[in-house]
Amino acid sequence: MLTDFYAKYFPFWNALSSDDKAYLCQNTFEEHFESAQRIHDNSACSGLFIVKSGRLRLYILSEDGKEISLYRLAPGDICMLSASCVLQSITFDVYVDAEEPSECYRISGPAFADISSRYLEVKNYALEIAVGRFSDVMWIMQQIVFMSMDKRLAIFLLDESSVSGSDTISMTHDQIARHLGTAREVITRMLKHFVTEGMIEVTRKGINIIDKSKMRSIVK
Amino acid sequence: MLTDFYAKYFPFWNALSSDDKAYLCQNTFEEHFESAQRIHDNSACSGLFIVKSGRLRLYILSEDGKEISLYRLAPGDICMLSASCVLQSITFDVYVDAEEPSECYRISGPAFADISSRYLEVKNYALEIAVGRFSDVMWIMQQIVFMSMDKRLAIFLLDESSVSGSDTISMTHDQIARHLGTAREVITRMLKHFVTEGMIEVTRKGINIIDKSKMRSIVK
Repeated sequence: MLTDFYAKYFPFWNALSSDDKAYLCQNTFEEHFESAQRIHDNSACSGLFIVKSGRLRLYILSEDGKEISLYRLAPGDICMLSASCVLQSITFDVYVDAEEPSECYRISGPAFADISSRYLEVKNYALEIAVGRFSDVMWIMQQIVFMSMDKRLAIFLLDESSVSGSDTISMTHDQIARHLGTAREVITRMLKHFVTEGMIEVTRKGINIIDKSKMRSIVK
Repeated sequence: MLTDFYAKYFPFWNALSSDDKAYLCQNTFEEHFESAQRIHDNSACSGLFIVKSGRLRLYILSEDGKEISLYRLAPGDICMLSASCVLQSITFDVYVDAEEPSECYRISGPAFADISSRYLEVKNYALEIAVGRFSDVMWIMQQIVFMSMDKRLAIFLLDESSVSGSDTISMTHDQIARHLGTAREVITRMLKHFVTEGMIEVTRKGINIIDKSKMRSIVK
């Protein structure tokens, strides 16, 4: 039951009236997304997504199509920045894609905004989530600004390996470049350097990390 | 009177008990800072700064001393990110310097955290301020990641000119480089290019913008 799930999920649940609990449930939709499907693009207030299974990626996009991944959402995570009508002080545009086939609850933006305007607890919850993401984004920003690309690439490969539970990263150079907001040539050159250093090998299946401890050492 | 000022300044003021109003006033300190003085460095929860006069700059700093300015605080603005004990989901380190001789009210971090833990309205206020700054930081991040350095430098010079109300920007190449998180050489090369293009002239007093409309045209 959705009510039971929400009772555990939302710290503000008990503060809501029975009517408002029902209202929030009526405005929740179960949705399925395919891998690589764009599920939010700022043309509307899509609402909040709670990930049940799969994985979402939130990113910013420049006019000429350059991307920077800000963070990923795993099962149990909630996407708040896709609900611009809830958080009016968020004035930047984000995009959200499914990275894998994903099941989500989507809560209508206007309905959540309505509830959040009437309950300080709900407003607080939404703001807390957003401020937590602020810290994630600052971490990315510090990497971009202060860290050389070899460190960023090493961190990216180690993270991907850890998320997927495999030493092989099945992504093209172009995909990696898009994640890190750089050119494909930069990634290709850097990967060649990693091969020479004996940290990875490049196979048909993708990039295979063969010396993790050496790769970790360049991150420090 | 501080009470009168706070009554106008803080939207939550009327929600506080008389005791808590007095408590907040007792934990407010009038402080003066010299130009270039560092007033917050994350070694402690410095508290909140409300700027009465002057100008503060908030920035991040890398281990090797590289800086990125995130935003400036003008009279009437409040600095919330220097109160890490109030916003526990803010996990990144920021630094705050006075850019001019500045007068501020400083509210003790622990006192404000105490009030904010007891009044949802106060917590909300603190979070709203932080989320608003999130948008400012995203704007900077998009500039860094997506914009070429000539555009960023032009935007910086136009902003400085607009803030100071003068066409002359009295900063060294090194200072500008620190603001933009790049090397001095990059700024020197770019400024030479701007001189050749007839947008600026470099004098003893600093950088003089002589063709604003041309400079604005490269920003578009």
